[in-house]
Amino acid sequence: MSRYPDDSYALHTDLYQINMAETYWEDGVHEKKAVFDLYFRRLPFGNGYAIFAGLERIIEYLQSFRFSESDIEYLRDLGYREDFLSYLKTIRFTGNVRSVQEGELVFAETPIMRVEANLAEAQLIETALLNIVNYQTLIATKASRVKQVIGDGTALEFGTRRAHEFDAALWGTRAAYIAGFAGTSNVRAGKKFGIPVAGTHAHSMVQAYQDDYKAFKKYARRHRDCIFLVDTYDTLKSGVPNAIRVAKELGDQINFVGIRLDSGDLAFLAKEARKMLDEAGFPDAKIVASNDLDEYTISSLKAQDAPIDSWGIGTKLITGYDQPALGAVYKISAIEDKQGEMVDTIKISSNPEKTTTPGIKNVFRIINKETKRSEGDYIALHGEEPQKEDRLHMFHPVHTYLSKHVTNFEAIELQRDIFKDGELIYTLPKLDEIRVFVQDNLNVLWDEYKRTNNPHQYPVDLSKACWENKRDYIEKALRLARKEK
Amino acid sequence: MSRYPDDSYALHTDLYQINMAETYWEDGVHEKKAVFDLYFRRLPFGNGYAIFAGLERIIEYLQSFRFSESDIEYLRDLGYREDFLSYLKTIRFTGNVRSVQEGELVFAETPIMRVEANLAEAQLIETALLNIVNYQTLIATKASRVKQVIGDGTALEFGTRRAHEFDAALWGTRAAYIAGFAGTSNVRAGKKFGIPVAGTHAHSMVQAYQDDYKAFKKYARRHRDCIFLVDTYDTLKSGVPNAIRVAKELGDQINFVGIRLDSGDLAFLAKEARKMLDEAGFPDAKIVASNDLDEYTISSLKAQDAPIDSWGIGTKLITGYDQPALGAVYKISAIEDKQGEMVDTIKISSNPEKTTTPGIKNVFRIINKETKRSEGDYIALHGEEPQKEDRLHMFHPVHTYLSKHVTNFEAIELQRDIFKDGELIYTLPKLDEIRVFVQDNLNVLWDEYKRTNNPHQYPVDLSKACWENKRDYIEKALRLARKEK
Repeated sequence: MSRYPDDSYALHTDLYQINMAETYWEDGVHEKKAVFDLYFRRLPFGNGYAIFAGLERIIEYLQSFRFSESDIEYLRDLGYREDFLSYLKTIRFTGNVRSVQEGELVFAETPIMRVEANLAEAQLIETALLNIVNYQTLIATKASRVKQVIGDGTALEFGTRRAHEFDAALWGTRAAYIAGFAGTSNVRAGKKFGIPVAGTHAHSMVQAYQDDYKAFKKYARRHRDCIFLVDTYDTLKSGVPNAIRVAKELGDQINFVGIRLDSGDLAFLAKEARKMLDEAGFPDAKIVASNDLDEYTISSLKAQDAPIDSWGIGTKLITGYDQPALGAVYKISAIEDKQGEMVDTIKISSNPEKTTTPGIKNVFRIINKETKRSEGDYIALHGEEPQKEDRLHMFHPVHTYLSKHVTNFEAIELQRDIFKDGELIYTLPKLDEIRVFVQDNLNVLWDEYKRTNNPHQYPVDLSKACWENKRDYIEKALRLARKEK
Repeated sequence: MSRYPDDSYALHTDLYQINMAETYWEDGVHEKKAVFDLYFRRLPFGNGYAIFAGLERIIEYLQSFRFSESDIEYLRDLGYREDFLSYLKTIRFTGNVRSVQEGELVFAETPIMRVEANLAEAQLIETALLNIVNYQTLIATKASRVKQVIGDGTALEFGTRRAHEFDAALWGTRAAYIAGFAGTSNVRAGKKFGIPVAGTHAHSMVQAYQDDYKAFKKYARRHRDCIFLVDTYDTLKSGVPNAIRVAKELGDQINFVGIRLDSGDLAFLAKEARKMLDEAGFPDAKIVASNDLDEYTISSLKAQDAPIDSWGIGTKLITGYDQPALGAVYKISAIEDKQGEMVDTIKISSNPEKTTTPGIKNVFRIINKETKRSEGDYIALHGEEPQKEDRLHMFHPVHTYLSKHVTNFEAIELQRDIFKDGELIYTLPKLDEIRVFVQDNLNVLWDEYKRTNNPHQYPVDLSKACWENKRDYIEKALRLARKEK
């Protein structure tokens, strides 16, 4: 289809990034150092926290970042000139990246990543970084909400057919696994990431044999672990009785794990099926339920005491259905001046939440040593050392009268060095380590931040120096903008 | 990261497909012919029609369908046995596919694709087919809604940073282009599909120069076509005046295309900016607007006479924000029996809309020769020839008293042969041909089906034979299910 023989991810970007890189290159400032912060302004789903995911994919992307021959050819066909194209050919990612780790809890305004790179590079990678963080963090967060409601039950990711194309199915299920899901139906994700895979058969198999009994029996000839889907014709009159019949007939020849319900009134059907299984002597047989489940439906089913053991979550999870986009942004906060000094920079907006926080910043989680719980996040200017202070003044960055003093705390720096001068200097944790890390992180959060409905707002505060710097820059920028006219 | 060296799309499937294939293989019925229909049950976004997209991607997928060495190795590690793995190694897609063409209008219950293949193959490809059709059709439909509201104005796809990972950005923007969008910011899609690309610069460039005037001037040194983003500091006090100043200073050295607004009150700012541009002697300068736009916001801006010429649509389009999943399903409708005859099959559900329509079917669009408009879609059993009838009785498949007789019509078969015995026998149209096809298709639809708000419901009817066959199968299946117990 394409005139160009190969593909690379360097063009997975917005055209304006290339035009900006060209402007900087023409002006000879493309190698000026710039600092960008990646963060979002509002938590998704009304949740009290988000779970950061996407770093592994970002590392892969940055390590292989280069324009292919045919990328250059395409850009030439668009009208870009040879001198600039020669420069683009040489581009690799040579900057620094600091980032919170995958599985870290992040909040509105928490600086998630800091990219320090030359202007052109920093700009060219923006779109891909946002694309990755926005989706994976969204799904990890949704999965965590669902898992909070499920509690000790088993959560399975079943959404591939409704995911937004192939990549989303793959990386979305990884995000769900990080957040506490037990497995996935997506076999490619199982292979790529080592995530446990789950699944038995569909309605179509029962239809192919035109008979529940026959279909279950055929399935059991080859598969020791059996979960029978019981709602092809009539759940209580045919599906469940035939599952029981096959389980009895085959006895120890199979491991009758249980049944799956995929339609109808799940609360009613689960209760009736439970009774039938118990009476038939299968009290350990599990009931798996699916069909457009999300944290709200699951919560309602649990409130009705539906005896469901495992939950298959598809569409509502893999698409982040009720809020299918996280709005992370990537904003320049400092740039090298003519003298080679870094100077802060700001973007003002008539929408105050869109005004950026200037300066090179670090972010700390303030853990109360007594309660072992977090008091909030604290954003300080580079060089500040809150970890060395005895008493920290934390105040709301907009409503500054909302403030508290914290003592006996530990200030844990959240961002780690990932790339240094383009070299990866971070060791990627294993997926199962990230899962554990998520649970450890959730443990430092008060329950009030973790409830799925109307959680308490977690504080993300600015240090006094950071706040005053921002205030000064706002005033300066406004004076300048108005004078310019 | 992965223990397995390579990747293939054969594992982009649900585990149960593999387990079903194994069951069929063990039972020796894996080469029985089966027929599956792909369709959805409800139109997305409350729209009156959907635009089918995804066929090109499906063709690519089916042509390269095979399990790689490492796929087999992974499945071996999961516990699948050698005899079955040997079979999997040999699998290619060898079946038939009929499909409506990309850009065709489809409705709830319109059979979009018909797969006739051996049971194992038909099952293994289900998940990928649904994944592709669901996303691409969703976005083409959303884009068409947006374009209906925009009318003659220019629609641009700007959503890559909020798309669900890389593939969605690529195929989503292709779907939007099919549906009438003029271009995209996604450079990779420009390269792969030849879609026009658009974009100039971001706020960060103005911040890098810390000054609107300087930034615009620098940009204009290298780029002849200039659209200046004017809302970094103060739109009306700095952005627009400096855009005008640069346009005046540079005169014919540049092509001052216009300005872009990306925040604030777009109606107010567009009107004020329009006045300033006109007064400065730039009546042809365009105003591009963006910032979380969708068909509702655009409609409101147009109702306020906001003088906006081009619309950049991001998040709300590329994620299908207000309904981020289409629920297409893939249901078996016939299967070969022991005598080698095809027999129909049905799935019953306590949820009536989930009950399938048995039998091998064709679908026709009934065009009134006088009005040149469509009277509805007509689903008939294979062998029926409505195109040869003089008078067609069309009735609602549930509320059968809703009926009409149509004469002087043309019955156009919607599905084309795509694959025959695994061979591609369809010539893919060019992308621009698909765009034209969409507009031609929309022309046969009465306006009542095309309005974005509360459209009239388009009829998708069953032939009498098809309806009676379904009714008989429901009765038979229920009798059987109840007796079985």
